Amino acid sequence: MSITSTNPRTGTAKESGITNTSRDEVAQVCLRAAEAARACRRTSREQRAAFLREVASRLEQDRERLAATADDETALGLPRLTGEIGRTVFQLRAFADLVEEGSYLEVTIDSAADTAIGPRPELRRLLVPVGPVAVFGASNFPFAFSVCGGDTAAALAVGCPVIIKAHSSHPLTTQQTFDLLEQAAAATGMPAGVVGLVFGREAGQALVQDPHIKAVGFTGSEAGGRVLFDLASSRPEPIPFYGELGSINPLVVTPAAAQARAAAIAAGYVESLTLGGGQFCTKPSLMFIPANFGDTLRRHLAEEIAKANTPWLLNAGIHRAYEKGVADLEGDDGIPLLGRAEADLEAGFAVKPALFWTSAEQFCDKRQLMLTECFGPVGIVVEYASDSQLLQLLGDLPGALVGTIHAESADEALAADVVEVLSERVGRIAWNGYPTGVAVSWGMMHGGPYPSSTSLHTSVGQTSVRRFLRPLCYQAVPQQLLPHEARDNTRAVPLRRDGRLTLA
Amino acid sequence: MSITSTNPRTGTAKESGITNTSRDEVAQVCLRAAEAARACRRTSREQRAAFLREVASRLEQDRERLAATADDETALGLPRLTGEIGRTVFQLRAFADLVEEGSYLEVTIDSAADTAIGPRPELRRLLVPVGPVAVFGASNFPFAFSVCGGDTAAALAVGCPVIIKAHSSHPLTTQQTFDLLEQAAAATGMPAGVVGLVFGREAGQALVQDPHIKAVGFTGSEAGGRVLFDLASSRPEPIPFYGELGSINPLVVTPAAAQARAAAIAAGYVESLTLGGGQFCTKPSLMFIPANFGDTLRRHLAEEIAKANTPWLLNAGIHRAYEKGVADLEGDDGIPLLGRAEADLEAGFAVKPALFWTSAEQFCDKRQLMLTECFGPVGIVVEYASDSQLLQLLGDLPGALVGTIHAESADEALAADVVEVLSERVGRIAWNGYPTGVAVSWGMMHGGPYPSSTSLHTSVGQTSVRRFLRPLCYQAVPQQLLPHEARDNTRAVPLRRDGRLTLA
Repeated sequence: MSITSTNPRTGTAKESGITNTSRDEVAQVCLRAAEAARACRRTSREQRAAFLREVASRLEQDRERLAATADDETALGLPRLTGEIGRTVFQLRAFADLVEEGSYLEVTIDSAADTAIGPRPELRRLLVPVGPVAVFGASNFPFAFSVCGGDTAAALAVGCPVIIKAHSSHPLTTQQTFDLLEQAAAATGMPAGVVGLVFGREAGQALVQDPHIKAVGFTGSEAGGRVLFDLASSRPEPIPFYGELGSINPLVVTPAAAQARAAAIAAGYVESLTLGGGQFCTKPSLMFIPANFGDTLRRHLAEEIAKANTPWLLNAGIHRAYEKGVADLEGDDGIPLLGRAEADLEAGFAVKPALFWTSAEQFCDKRQLMLTECFGPVGIVVEYASDSQLLQLLGDLPGALVGTIHAESADEALAADVVEVLSERVGRIAWNGYPTGVAVSWGMMHGGPYPSSTSLHTSVGQTSVRRFLRPLCYQAVPQQLLPHEARDNTRAVPLRRDGRLTLA
Repeated sequence: MSITSTNPRTGTAKESGITNTSRDEVAQVCLRAAEAARACRRTSREQRAAFLREVASRLEQDRERLAATADDETALGLPRLTGEIGRTVFQLRAFADLVEEGSYLEVTIDSAADTAIGPRPELRRLLVPVGPVAVFGASNFPFAFSVCGGDTAAALAVGCPVIIKAHSSHPLTTQQTFDLLEQAAAATGMPAGVVGLVFGREAGQALVQDPHIKAVGFTGSEAGGRVLFDLASSRPEPIPFYGELGSINPLVVTPAAAQARAAAIAAGYVESLTLGGGQFCTKPSLMFIPANFGDTLRRHLAEEIAKANTPWLLNAGIHRAYEKGVADLEGDDGIPLLGRAEADLEAGFAVKPALFWTSAEQFCDKRQLMLTECFGPVGIVVEYASDSQLLQLLGDLPGALVGTIHAESADEALAADVVEVLSERVGRIAWNGYPTGVAVSWGMMHGGPYPSSTSLHTSVGQTSVRRFLRPLCYQAVPQQLLPHEARDNTRAVPLRRDGRLTLA
């Protein structure tokens, strides 16, 4: 029997023809990746950039077929999925540019010198690939955080083979995308085994434990991520596990903002909350509003949520967890329903977006219930009675990917305090905007204190490549035995020489 | 009863007057550090640089007293200890310079823009301190890898409070150095609680488990480090554990080098092997020499080791482990003694440096015995019969801090292969030199694949600060709420703007 591919719009499952990968097969894929690793490390930056661009072109060319397949398996809709393929293509090209620019190598040359503490030999340092990387595809971004997504692009860019663990929610999309990836590798002369693919939960665990795997990139739930983090950390040779896990992201509205822009904030908040069916890890789950000026805002929020569409969630598990999460909130007298989408539910995994509200006291009493991530279009509005209470509430939140603040200049002192408190608990602070857009750029940080992520690195944007690199230092090694970029007279990359940064 | 301070020259212990820190006391020290963390984050780079320079000056001023105290507790000798204080001072000043230069912040500004995948808000990213850091002092470097050593300097430089776990081998040295550190903090107006100190094994474990601690820097044994790594990884909120553990460092002599420079290589090798009583983590434990051209080299090695001094090891535990390690090798018929220091042994923890030799076949058969790190002046010389056998042996070694190769131009093809194989298994490759000098510089990498270290970062040199930083991104946040370095028109630090690096 093969893995089933389920249409969220109907809940009906069909055979995908793809079977789970056995432990023996996983070991073989990993061995091939290990054999590819040395050849991969020797590929030029130009070749790897060409490879990434080839993947991008093939995704672009096959966009319609891929989006249609993914729409059958995710119900995210063709516009969103086509847009997501565009993001994935953009991302691959951004990493190709990064490889060509070369500053990611952090090339550093210290000349032989007599220092205050004695003679120092010549030292040349640069970053080298860690080796084969396991990438766990996410359910909610079948392209941008999956087979050819950010983790894959980052690892391949810097010369690491990649083995993808398919997400069970979209096996056909995964296979089609992987075929393109493999074809692009062959077309650009990348070593055999540079990309691999495995299916099934057991295969995923075997992958994390395989001695050839040197790092893991993961996007998914806190519970699932923690299991794999523990496996990675308890190996005989522990490896870094770069997990981007769940996150309860706060959004704060100051009194002045609530007075000035209640309608706009309510509309923007509900749009952000329900984006992609509320299945974004940056979803602003918790909205903090001032009790004194909350009435108008609450009324607008109720109106906006009533008008919301009723999306299909990605799979039966997420659907079930959402219904349970909402029922748990509904079952609590201290957390009244603020509003709910009024449209009729369609078949399959469709759900009604919902908003609840509560007091700061209730929130503190029922932290565990309200801090449990519920994937899907549900949010909780918490009313704060004073600035100091707000700061206290924020200071007690667990680590999050992103915190948002809506403020006006009249509230600048409060806003400064909120920024300060958030800066200790999140990876990104969004101002008078919404957290759900995650730009692929040098300045992005997508990650944050645990449990939002398990590392001190971003999983989105150019600097995410640092996760798959380690430093190597050459002490007095002759020119001809050095990597090209570490030699003299190659002004190809930005360089730190004798402590001073210089540009290419 | 207090912790004992033992003189390795005599083996006699005296009361230090210092007692182990209780779990409650550890919790209090951590709480103070957490309270200091916010104030510490707000200190200016100038203030932190001044703090580090003040520590350096006080160490320099008190050099004679500190070295004398340390000599009583380590028997490393005044010249070495005075030199090590110089290294520590140099290191503190290097980190002060780094903080002033500011490129470590990785300030990145992406302007608001319309991109190929839609509008992007303004993003400003920089690295911020992770929070309180635990630093475990090492036995073998009572200054440079201890209270005011590299980990401490790196963490304080970037704005993290530091709590030091004293090494039990030198409690008085630790307390004296910590007093200077604390005085320097007060003298430069650093927040109360920015530095703390705990004693005892149980306190160390409590420290790693305390929820206020956000990262650990450790230098020590593989066994001890792994216990603490496991504690750090299994916390409810796991934290990074930057362990620099034991290492079996290979040194390869090619046939041409053995023919050309046997006497010099033998002298240099034995000097490196016995430096600091063989108690360097970069000690070249394993020497690979060509069987065909090995006779002369072996003879010189035997002569050199015979002339070696008989050092005192650092403490009773290391002394005992050394004697057992050497006895285990001696008890094996396949690993003959090549030579041993001839000087008479003095009292206390004195030992005789020893060299063993063996064939490649014996080495493969008895890997476990020969790959067990034995701290102290003992090495094993392994004879290889062919180039391919050498490469095979090297490829099967565990991860190491540093690999060394002695070669001549006649052997360049072999040397290239050796460099390639080593580059996959070590953090640094030394050419026609010795591995035991670890420069404090931008180009250094002191770390390597597990078990030599537990992270992808160096623990020595300027780039080691990255371990104690995490990225934070500000999305469209007004100028006046940004950290100074992320604002417009502050050309104070190197900057990446819209993807392009620019210098200050």
